[in-house]
Amino acid sequence: MSVVVQKYGGSSVADADRIRAVADHVARTRRGGREVAVVVSAMGKTTDALVRMAEDVSAKRPLREMDMLLSSGERISMALLCMALADLGVDARSFTGSQAGIITDTVHTKAKILEIRSDRIRAALDDGAVPVVAGFQGVSTDRDVTTLGRGGSDTTAVALAAALGASVCEIYTDVSGVYTADPRIVPAARKLARVSHEEMLEMAATGGRVLALRSVEFARNHGVPLEVRSSFTWEPGTIVEEEDPSMEQMIVTAITHDVSESKITVAGVPDRPGLAARLFRALADRAVNVDMIVQNTSLHGTTDISFTVPTADLEISIAVAESMIGALGATGVSADSDVARISVIGAGMKTHPGVTAQMFETLAALGINIEMISTSAIRISCLIRSSAAEEAVQALHTAFELG
Amino acid sequence: MSVVVQKYGGSSVADADRIRAVADHVARTRRGGREVAVVVSAMGKTTDALVRMAEDVSAKRPLREMDMLLSSGERISMALLCMALADLGVDARSFTGSQAGIITDTVHTKAKILEIRSDRIRAALDDGAVPVVAGFQGVSTDRDVTTLGRGGSDTTAVALAAALGASVCEIYTDVSGVYTADPRIVPAARKLARVSHEEMLEMAATGGRVLALRSVEFARNHGVPLEVRSSFTWEPGTIVEEEDPSMEQMIVTAITHDVSESKITVAGVPDRPGLAARLFRALADRAVNVDMIVQNTSLHGTTDISFTVPTADLEISIAVAESMIGALGATGVSADSDVARISVIGAGMKTHPGVTAQMFETLAALGINIEMISTSAIRISCLIRSSAAEEAVQALHTAFELG
Repeated sequence: MSVVVQKYGGSSVADADRIRAVADHVARTRRGGREVAVVVSAMGKTTDALVRMAEDVSAKRPLREMDMLLSSGERISMALLCMALADLGVDARSFTGSQAGIITDTVHTKAKILEIRSDRIRAALDDGAVPVVAGFQGVSTDRDVTTLGRGGSDTTAVALAAALGASVCEIYTDVSGVYTADPRIVPAARKLARVSHEEMLEMAATGGRVLALRSVEFARNHGVPLEVRSSFTWEPGTIVEEEDPSMEQMIVTAITHDVSESKITVAGVPDRPGLAARLFRALADRAVNVDMIVQNTSLHGTTDISFTVPTADLEISIAVAESMIGALGATGVSADSDVARISVIGAGMKTHPGVTAQMFETLAALGINIEMISTSAIRISCLIRSSAAEEAVQALHTAFELG
Repeated sequence: MSVVVQKYGGSSVADADRIRAVADHVARTRRGGREVAVVVSAMGKTTDALVRMAEDVSAKRPLREMDMLLSSGERISMALLCMALADLGVDARSFTGSQAGIITDTVHTKAKILEIRSDRIRAALDDGAVPVVAGFQGVSTDRDVTTLGRGGSDTTAVALAAALGASVCEIYTDVSGVYTADPRIVPAARKLARVSHEEMLEMAATGGRVLALRSVEFARNHGVPLEVRSSFTWEPGTIVEEEDPSMEQMIVTAITHDVSESKITVAGVPDRPGLAARLFRALADRAVNVDMIVQNTSLHGTTDISFTVPTADLEISIAVAESMIGALGATGVSADSDVARISVIGAGMKTHPGVTAQMFETLAALGINIEMISTSAIRISCLIRSSAAEEAVQALHTAFELG
């Protein structure tokens, strides 16, 4: 029998009514003749409420204990979902991360899945039952409770789908799929029927908030097809799957934007090998995720290095950069958080030159200055003023005929 | 080093302030040079709130899923307590029932502890850390999450104390100890400095609400000394320990009362061997806990059998009794929930005749009719009208000079 993994996010199980609606959908899928394994997040804003409780009690908040605390949220939602399924006559069984065999490393609050020992889940399916697995959590090789950090429940679902050899991993959320641009900014944005894993990865990395980057990466690496769907309308969503080389591809699939990053410039760095490496090693040692990096052409033997970091990490990044001024022989550090990254993404771009030119021309026509550029085989990103972001996304969406 | 197990009930960890106060007390005990293992209940009314959520979602509420749901409460309180301890510089580590090696049978919501594999707790103590263990929960031999039912956290604490060879198991609650009678009814009631396990057992079984019967039973069977104390005043409480045969005992230690039971009478039962056994087997099969049983002298070859059951089980008990009328050849079933059980308890009673006479005389002087009587070596209980209960307790407390 074909196995489907269904993952329900916090908004999908926010209250008793939503939980019953999800149970109804799971029951109908099961009765449609497919084996179903479910992964759930904590209800609504439970995790935020737990974090506030911890902040009330403690200034230190050891990470091991934060994991113990936060992992209680999924226990509640999964037990309630199993009860709602029981009312519909479906034999459902909840499993904690530990019971589901989700083995992680020992990095509390940001653990990575090492292995899934899915024998108990497989046994439940073999019994004709619906296993309901806690998302976002696992058990470490030290036998401690761990959580997977941001996007963790999606990752649980994808990893479980890979372990069970599922035909699809359905991600239910409060949006109905993946769009050609953010519909709040571009009213003409269209829902995409299909995108490739690679395109979805680029979208997730550049501001598309629908799926967490790591879950898409896992899905691509293990060849797991995803479907992003709404648990409010239940209509067909967007399928994310391996690229089909026999099909002609859209040149441009989507426009994304991201205003959550800031730009730092280290000026007057002597143009010698190894200096940039020292700067970025120092940032990596403080766990700062550097995104775009641009080094200007060297003038008079010195160069400026600009890079972007998550605005949440701006303060620590500036401190690191300033502490390196002496070691680098640089002249100064400046920072700017009023920037936006606009990206044009499309698998067909590889074989169609001219996308870059079209993007630059569109921005130029609006008088928008490009401050940094970075590209991949299927993406072009420009850093611009954040005040121009909406206008830029709208114009690019029209220019590439995505409406 | 001497090990102490400290158990904190729901009211002791009801909010952030209470949790910090508990952390402070644990830290001071630890710094006093003793090893401390802590057992916590869920915060305040968390368990009630979780039950209400389940009732909102589902009519069926499978017991396995109720256990998964309810066990989330202690995860929250124990993680928060560990965080508060970290702020005080104490290395504390939370452990779920499963992590603490609390192995139970498979009876969901009313599981019994089979074994404690305390190696992780012992290892934490050996590291100089304070293990904080979830009360009320364990893992079954089928690897499912279980809860221990009413009084479960006390039982966890006593079992852990036994497994660790603790010198004492301190039970912190919202009362300051065990009293000669309920102070709300008898203002002159005194806090007892010491009682024996046997006396405490009789008190717990007959309306003393401070400790759950099963935890006292476990403490007696494993020779674990208990101390009942207040987490609000922190003053010395009541020590519950093995009887010291070298000491002269109080003839009467305490007066208890219980209005939570009802009386059922099956009338006109033929006086033949085996009929009573059939009735009580039928009740046992429905998991009804029968308490007092009285069978009147046989008149004309028939007898009346009266017994008490928890009022919560009254309906099912009446139904069982009525269904047996034909099989027993009885003439009818009657029930009465306006009854109270008044008990006089004292280890010295064994060697001092006259306590029974004094009890009956005291009740007679008040014109109180005794409907049923039951006795043990260290207890006499009388069933009376519930309206007379307070008056009876007050008079007995005075008559036995407990003030």
